[in-house]
Amino acid sequence: MTTAGAQRLSTTLADDFAGTRALSCAIAAQLSDADATVQPMPDASPAKWHLAHTTWFFETFVLRDHVAGHAPFDPRFAFLFNSYYEAEGARHARDRRGMLSRPSLSDILDWRAHVDAAIASALPDLSPAARDLIELGIHHEQQHQELMLTDMLATFHANPLLPAVWDHPRPTPAPVPGAIGWIEGIEGIATIGHAGPGFAFDCEGPRHTVLLHPHALADRLVTNAEWQAFIADGGYRDAALWLSDGWAWVKREAVEAPLYWQREGAADWRAFALDGLHPLHPAAPVTHVSFYEADAYARWAGARLPTEAEWEVAAQAHDPAGGNQLDTAGPVRPRAAARSSSPHQMFGDVWQWTGSAYLPYPGFTPAEGAVGEYNGKFMSGQAVLKGASCATPRGHSRASYRNFFYPHQRWQFTGVRLAKDL
Amino acid sequence: MTTAGAQRLSTTLADDFAGTRALSCAIAAQLSDADATVQPMPDASPAKWHLAHTTWFFETFVLRDHVAGHAPFDPRFAFLFNSYYEAEGARHARDRRGMLSRPSLSDILDWRAHVDAAIASALPDLSPAARDLIELGIHHEQQHQELMLTDMLATFHANPLLPAVWDHPRPTPAPVPGAIGWIEGIEGIATIGHAGPGFAFDCEGPRHTVLLHPHALADRLVTNAEWQAFIADGGYRDAALWLSDGWAWVKREAVEAPLYWQREGAADWRAFALDGLHPLHPAAPVTHVSFYEADAYARWAGARLPTEAEWEVAAQAHDPAGGNQLDTAGPVRPRAAARSSSPHQMFGDVWQWTGSAYLPYPGFTPAEGAVGEYNGKFMSGQAVLKGASCATPRGHSRASYRNFFYPHQRWQFTGVRLAKDL
Amino acid sequence: MTTAGAQRLSTTLADDFAGTRALSCAIAAQLSDADATVQPMPDASPAKWHLAHTTWFFETFVLRDHVAGHAPFDPRFAFLFNSYYEAEGARHARDRRGMLSRPSLSDILDWRAHVDAAIASALPDLSPAARDLIELGIHHEQQHQELMLTDMLATFHANPLLPAVWDHPRPTPAPVPGAIGWIEGIEGIATIGHAGPGFAFDCEGPRHTVLLHPHALADRLVTNAEWQAFIADGGYRDAALWLSDGWAWVKREAVEAPLYWQREGAADWRAFALDGLHPLHPAAPVTHVSFYEADAYARWAGARLPTEAEWEVAAQAHDPAGGNQLDTAGPVRPRAAARSSSPHQMFGDVWQWTGSAYLPYPGFTPAEGAVGEYNGKFMSGQAVLKGASCATPRGHSRASYRNFFYPHQRWQFTGVRLAKDL
Amino acid sequence: MTTAGAQRLSTTLADDFAGTRALSCAIAAQLSDADATVQPMPDASPAKWHLAHTTWFFETFVLRDHVAGHAPFDPRFAFLFNSYYEAEGARHARDRRGMLSRPSLSDILDWRAHVDAAIASALPDLSPAARDLIELGIHHEQQHQELMLTDMLATFHANPLLPAVWDHPRPTPAPVPGAIGWIEGIEGIATIGHAGPGFAFDCEGPRHTVLLHPHALADRLVTNAEWQAFIADGGYRDAALWLSDGWAWVKREAVEAPLYWQREGAADWRAFALDGLHPLHPAAPVTHVSFYEADAYARWAGARLPTEAEWEVAAQAHDPAGGNQLDTAGPVRPRAAARSSSPHQMFGDVWQWTGSAYLPYPGFTPAEGAVGEYNGKFMSGQAVLKGASCATPRGHSRASYRNFFYPHQRWQFTGVRLAKDL
Repeated sequence: MTTAGAQRLSTTLADDFAGTRALSCAIAAQLSDADATVQPMPDASPAKWHLAHTTWFFETFVLRDHVAGHAPFDPRFAFLFNSYYEAEGARHARDRRGMLSRPSLSDILDWRAHVDAAIASALPDLSPAARDLIELGIHHEQQHQELMLTDMLATFHANPLLPAVWDHPRPTPAPVPGAIGWIEGIEGIATIGHAGPGFAFDCEGPRHTVLLHPHALADRLVTNAEWQAFIADGGYRDAALWLSDGWAWVKREAVEAPLYWQREGAADWRAFALDGLHPLHPAAPVTHVSFYEADAYARWAGARLPTEAEWEVAAQAHDPAGGNQLDTAGPVRPRAAARSSSPHQMFGDVWQWTGSAYLPYPGFTPAEGAVGEYNGKFMSGQAVLKGASCATPRGHSRASYRNFFYPHQRWQFTGVRLAKDL
Repeated sequence: MTTAGAQRLSTTLADDFAGTRALSCAIAAQLSDADATVQPMPDASPAKWHLAHTTWFFETFVLRDHVAGHAPFDPRFAFLFNSYYEAEGARHARDRRGMLSRPSLSDILDWRAHVDAAIASALPDLSPAARDLIELGIHHEQQHQELMLTDMLATFHANPLLPAVWDHPRPTPAPVPGAIGWIEGIEGIATIGHAGPGFAFDCEGPRHTVLLHPHALADRLVTNAEWQAFIADGGYRDAALWLSDGWAWVKREAVEAPLYWQREGAADWRAFALDGLHPLHPAAPVTHVSFYEADAYARWAGARLPTEAEWEVAAQAHDPAGGNQLDTAGPVRPRAAARSSSPHQMFGDVWQWTGSAYLPYPGFTPAEGAVGEYNGKFMSGQAVLKGASCATPRGHSRASYRNFFYPHQRWQFTGVRLAKDL
Repeated sequence: MTTAGAQRLSTTLADDFAGTRALSCAIAAQLSDADATVQPMPDASPAKWHLAHTTWFFETFVLRDHVAGHAPFDPRFAFLFNSYYEAEGARHARDRRGMLSRPSLSDILDWRAHVDAAIASALPDLSPAARDLIELGIHHEQQHQELMLTDMLATFHANPLLPAVWDHPRPTPAPVPGAIGWIEGIEGIATIGHAGPGFAFDCEGPRHTVLLHPHALADRLVTNAEWQAFIADGGYRDAALWLSDGWAWVKREAVEAPLYWQREGAADWRAFALDGLHPLHPAAPVTHVSFYEADAYARWAGARLPTEAEWEVAAQAHDPAGGNQLDTAGPVRPRAAARSSSPHQMFGDVWQWTGSAYLPYPGFTPAEGAVGEYNGKFMSGQAVLKGASCATPRGHSRASYRNFFYPHQRWQFTGVRLAKDL
Repeated sequence: MTTAGAQRLSTTLADDFAGTRALSCAIAAQLSDADATVQPMPDASPAKWHLAHTTWFFETFVLRDHVAGHAPFDPRFAFLFNSYYEAEGARHARDRRGMLSRPSLSDILDWRAHVDAAIASALPDLSPAARDLIELGIHHEQQHQELMLTDMLATFHANPLLPAVWDHPRPTPAPVPGAIGWIEGIEGIATIGHAGPGFAFDCEGPRHTVLLHPHALADRLVTNAEWQAFIADGGYRDAALWLSDGWAWVKREAVEAPLYWQREGAADWRAFALDGLHPLHPAAPVTHVSFYEADAYARWAGARLPTEAEWEVAAQAHDPAGGNQLDTAGPVRPRAAARSSSPHQMFGDVWQWTGSAYLPYPGFTPAEGAVGEYNGKFMSGQAVLKGASCATPRGHSRASYRNFFYPHQRWQFTGVRLAKDL
C-alpha cells in the first residue's frame, strides 16, 4: 500500500472505518446464526467467518502491533480466523470453516463492537504506519464485503429450497442492446499501475510502461441473450472452442451453462440470485462465468479477451466510482446498459476476465511482514479481472485494480468484455 | 416389526409417543440454530436434521398413508428429510445435510408440534397397522436420539474450541477393577432372535436355534486403563495384531488412539466428551473404538470378540433395561463398574462389538413397502454390536437387538467385551 | 496347514512340485515379456509377478529357512516379490507391480529354474516341516495359477484391441437347460471344516459342528440366458433388489451387466474371454458377477444365496476333482451342463458366492510365523465362495475349501447357485 | 508453421526425415518390449507409444490426407495412438497407455518402416503443403525424442531396482564455478517471436515488439551445489519463500529435493539418471525442478526468474545449436560449465523456467485443421521455458522456441537461470 493513508486526516479515516464496519453488518443483517455458519464449498466462507476475519485483521495488525496494552478479546480467535497468513502461525483449516457454530454470530458482533471501539479510541494517537494499516484493513474488509455477498449467494444456492436472501420486486427488463461496437484502443507505449495519491494494493505497482499493439475493445459487456445464443449453437459441446484445460473442466463438471442458471425448458433458463430464482434478463450482462467459458465464448464470437494493459489504459478515462456498484446492503445484480459511443460498463455490474495472467509487475516487491502475504504469493495460475462488480463497494476499485481468480472459478460476479486485434 | 404394537392400548402408545418426542427436543435444547445445522462428516447428521427426519417418518408413513385428508406441513420437506428410502423418491444428498440453514431449528420445532398434535388427535381411531407404524416410529426416533448425541459430540469436536454441550461437575473416579474374570457360556443348541411379545425390528427375527461351541465371556468391559497399556505396548504399531483391512486403515488415517482421545504428554491422555475435554477415567470402559481396534485389542490380549449368539444367549439372563443408559438429556458417558461374579455391563455404557457379520437370520424377510428398507438392505460389510450404550434410550434395547456399523466406524459409543474358546 | 505333507513320500511331493511349477510356465507360454509385465488394475498382478512371487515363496520359506548355505538368487527380489507378508519386511507397492519391466520374463524363468533345481536337490533330505512348506507352496502356487489366468484375462481386456490369449475354435453351444430343480438339504447338526488326511489351509479348520435349518439348493448354476432375463427385466435399475452398498456400487460404476460383457444391440451381448470376444453361450453358467450382483439376482429370482455350511455339507457327497477344472494351460471357460437329479456343477465352471462372511471357525488359530499371515488376516469384509472354477487346477479344491473376495470384486470366475428356505 | 518447408529441396527434407526417424529408434534401442510398454505416470508415455504416435502423425496428416490410395497399416492404430487431437475422433485414454502390450515393439517398428518407405516414395511428388506437414512432423517427432528420454528416465526410476538405461563411465567432475556474474540486458523496445526463414511452431509468432525494463541475467545456470545450500538453509521448509500454490504442493507431496534426488546421509545426495544412480555433480546445473521450486529458489537468492522476452532477446545473440544438446542416443545429462563474461548455457543442459505465462502473442491464430490443436489450446495455466536441454535434438530449438509445462511438473530436464531488476 502507499503511504497515502498516513497523510489523510484521521477524522476521515475514522468515518471510513466506521462506515465500512457498519456496511459489513448490514450485509449480514438478513442472516440467521445458522445462515452465517454454513460453508457451501471450500472456496467460500461463512458470513460469520468474514465478519470475524476482518475483525481479526484490525485486532492483530493494528491493536496488537500498535496499541500498547491491548489484550485480545478472545485469544483463541486468532487460530480460528486467520485466513492464510503463514507468518501468523497455525490456523483452522480453510475447508472446515463451516464447523464453527461457536462463537455465535452474536458473539462475533460483540467482538466487532469491542474492536471498533478500541480502534476509534486509539485512532487519534496512532502512528502513520498504524493509520496505513487501518486503511489497508478498510480495503481488505471491502473485499470481504464482496465475498460475503457472493458466498451468501453460494450458501443459499446450496439449499434445495433456494431461499432468497432479500425479497424485492424486480424492475421491468430493459431492451436488448444492438450489436457490439468496437472502440479502437491506443497503440504504442502507455503507462499502467497505480500512480497515487490514494490507496492501492502492493500488487498494483510499480507504475510502469507497457507496449500496446493495435486493438479494439467492445463498447459493452456480453449479455445473457448473447450467451443463450452461444449455448444454443452448441458452445458447450464443441471442443474446438475450448482451451484444453477448459474442455477437461466442462466434461468433468458436466458444465452446460453459467453457474446458477437452471433450465426450465429446452431454451428457457432461470437464474438464482440474491433475491431468489428469476427468469433471465436478456439484456443484462452475463455473470458467473469462468475464465474458460469467457475464453471459449470469445473464440466462438471471433474475438478474444482484452489484455490487462489494454483494459487498464482504456479505463483510465473512466470514473471508477461510476456504474452499478455496491452502495447499500441488498440484492445486488448486474443490470442492462444501453450502447454508447465509448466503452462503458467499465466499472460495475461484473468483473471482466482478461487474457492476462496475474504476475508481478516489473520491480514488484511485496510489503514487509505478514501483510506482505497479501497479494504476491498468489501470483501463479490465476487470471486477472478488471473493473468492479455490482457487489464491489463503491470507491473500492480503480483502473489499476488487479482482481484475480483461478480459471475455473465462477462464484464471483464475473463476466466478459470482448476485444480484438486490429 | 411384530404386530405387538397393534395390541397395545392406544393410551400407552400415546404416552410413549409423547415421551419420545419430548426427549428428542430435550436432547437438542442446549443447541443454537447454528449448532443444530452443522454436519461434521458425512456419517453424522445435524441435530436439526434428526429432529426433522423423525418427524418426516411419522408424517409420511402414518399421517400421509393412514389419515385421510392430511396435508403435509411443507411439501418440500420430504425431499430434504428422507434419509435413504429409495421407494420414497429423490432426496437431498446425505453429505450435504449441513447446507440446510433453512428451515430453521425453530421451523422444525413448529413442524414437530404440528405433527405431534395431528398424531395425538388421530391416534384413537388409527388402525392396528397404523399403530404399529407409530410404534416403529418411536423406536426409529429412539435410534435417532442416540445418533443425535453422538453426532452432537462429533460436531462439537469439529470445533477447535472444543466447547462442551453440557457443563457438569464430574464425580470422583472409581478404582480400577481387577483382572477380568471368565464366565463359561452354555454349549450346544440354544435359541436366539426376537420371541415377542413386544416390539422388535424385522432383522431380529425369525427366532431360531443356534449351536454354541465351548466358550467363555469376560465378566466386564475393557477399560481405558487397559487400553492405555495396549497403546504403551505398541498396539497401534504392530501389524501382526491387525486384520489386513484394519492395518491399512490405521496407516491411512494415522490412528494411534480411540477417537476423541488427545495426547497431553508421553502417556497422558485426555478425552473429549459431551461435557468437554477431561482426563481419562482409567476404570471406565473404553469407547469410540472401531471394530478393527476391538479385534486387534482382543488378539493382543490373547482373546477374541464374542459371537453374536454367544453374547445374546448370555444376555438373555440380564435385564435389558438395566445399567447406564439414557434416561434424560445430558452429558452421557460410560462409567466404571465393579467386577462381579456374573457377566455384567451387558446393557449400557457402550455397544459391544461382536465378531459376527450383520447377515440375515434363517427365514428372514423384510417388511413390505418403504419401511422394508429399514434393515435388510444394510446386510453387507457391517459387524453386529450388542447391548446398549449410555446414549441408548432406556427401554429401547433387548438381548435380540442387532446394532450394526462398518468396521472402521467409531463415532458411536462402541467398546469391547472379550471372549475366548474353551 | 495340516501335517499331512510331512507324511507323504518325498518322491510324490517332488512330482507334484515339478508338475505345478511346469503348469505355471505353460500358462504363461503365450505371453510376450510385455504381456507378462502389464498390471491392468491394483487387484490384478502381472503374470511375471505371479511367476516370481511363487518362486520367492519357495526360496524364502523353504530354501532360506530350511536349507543351509542357500544364497538368494538375487537379494533384491525379496523386496519386489513379497506380496503382503508384514513379517517379511518392506515390499514394493501392490499397485505398482506393473512398473517392473526388469527383471525380464526370461530372468524370472531363469530364477524359477534355479529354485526348482535347488528344491529338487534338497528335497530328499528335508525335514517334515520343510516338506509341509513345499506342499503349502504347491497349493499357494495353484492359487496363483488361477489368478494368472484371471489376471491375464483382465490384462488383455484392458487393451482396446481385445486380443485373444489363445485362439481356439469353440464347440457347438449346448441347449439351454430347463427350470432349476430344488434339492432338499439335510437339517440339524452337521459337520464341516477340513477333516484330513490331506492338505488344507489353516482357515478350513478346525472341523466343527454346525446347525442347518430347512433349506434346498438349486441343482445347477444360474445361466447366461437367465442373467439376460434379469437384465431385460430391469434388474440393474431397480434399487429394491439390491443391498445398499451394492446399489451404490452399481450407480458409481455404472454397472449394467457382468464384467466382460459388451452390448452389441439392444439385447445382444458378447463376452470377452481368454479366447477373445464371442457371442454369449446361453446355456453356460454366468460368470464374472460380484457378490452384490449374485445377491440381487437371487432376490429377483425369489431365492437367496446358500450359506457356506449348506453348500459344504451338500458338497461332501461330490467328487471335488470332477467337473470343468484346469488340467492344462488353455482358454478355460465355464461350460453348459445338463440338469440332473442331484446338485451338480458343485465343483468346476465357476466359484459360487455364498451368503456367508469369511470369518474364523470356532477355535481357529493361524499358523505360526510369516505363513500365518496367509489367511487369517483377511477375515473381514469378504464373502466366502465355494467349489472350484474352470481356472482352478484340478485337485486343488475340496468341500472345505474357503475362497473369499470382497463383495464388489468380479474378475475371478465367479457365479451363482441359488438356495431357498423350506 | 511457416511455409519454409515448402521451399526446401525435397532431398534435404528426405534426409532430415530419415535421420529423425532413425534417431527415435536409436533412443529406444536399449529397451526390451516390456521396457517400452510401461507407463510410469499419466504425464509420461511408454517409449513404444512415442514411436507409434509419431508414426501415426505422418500416416494421418501426410499419407492419408495427401497420398492417394494410401491404406492405413492397421486401421485400429488411430484409436490407440492419437494423443489429443479432438478433431481426429475418439482415442485411448491417456492414463491407460501402459496397457498396450500389443502391438509389440517389433510390430511398431514394422509400422515405422512401412510408413517411412511410403513417405520416402511419395516425397518427390508431394505438394508444398504436404512437405510442410512432413517438416512439422519432423519437429513433432523431435519433441517426442526428448519426451522419450525423460519418460524412459521416469520409467526406470519407477523400478525399485533403479536400472540404468545406458551404462557408461562418468568423466571427472568439473570444479564448482564462482559466484554468478550479472549481465545487463537491453532496455526499451525489442522484437521477439519467430522471424523466419526456417521452421517454427505457430505459437512462436507473430513476431512482435516488446518493452523491456532495466534488468540483468545471470551468466550461468544454478548448480547442484547451490541447490544443496538452499536445502541446507531450510528452503523447502520456509513458507515465506513459496508461492501459495507451490507451498501447498510441497506439503501435499512432501517435496524436499529435486525429483530423482535421494538422500544417502544428512547432506549427502545421489541422483538417478539415464546411466543410473550417481553422486551429485556439484558443478552441474540443477535439473528436474518445478516452476514452484525455481521461483522459491530465486526468492531465496534475492533474485527472480527472467521473463520470456528478457531471455529471448538475450538469446538472439547466441547459437541455438550450441551447447550440450542431443546428438546421438545415449545417457544425456546436464554438464558443468565454466563462468564466462557473457550469458552462456543459453541453449543446452536444461530448459530454463521463465516467470512468464504461456499465452498467445498479439495477433496469434492457430493453424487450420487438426494440426491447429498443436499449441494454442494449451495456453492456460502453464509457464514458458526457454532454451534447450541435454535431451533436445540439436537443431530443434531456437531463441523464439516456447516450451511450456505446468508449474508442478518436473520430470523434464528443467533448471534455473536467475534474473534481477536493475
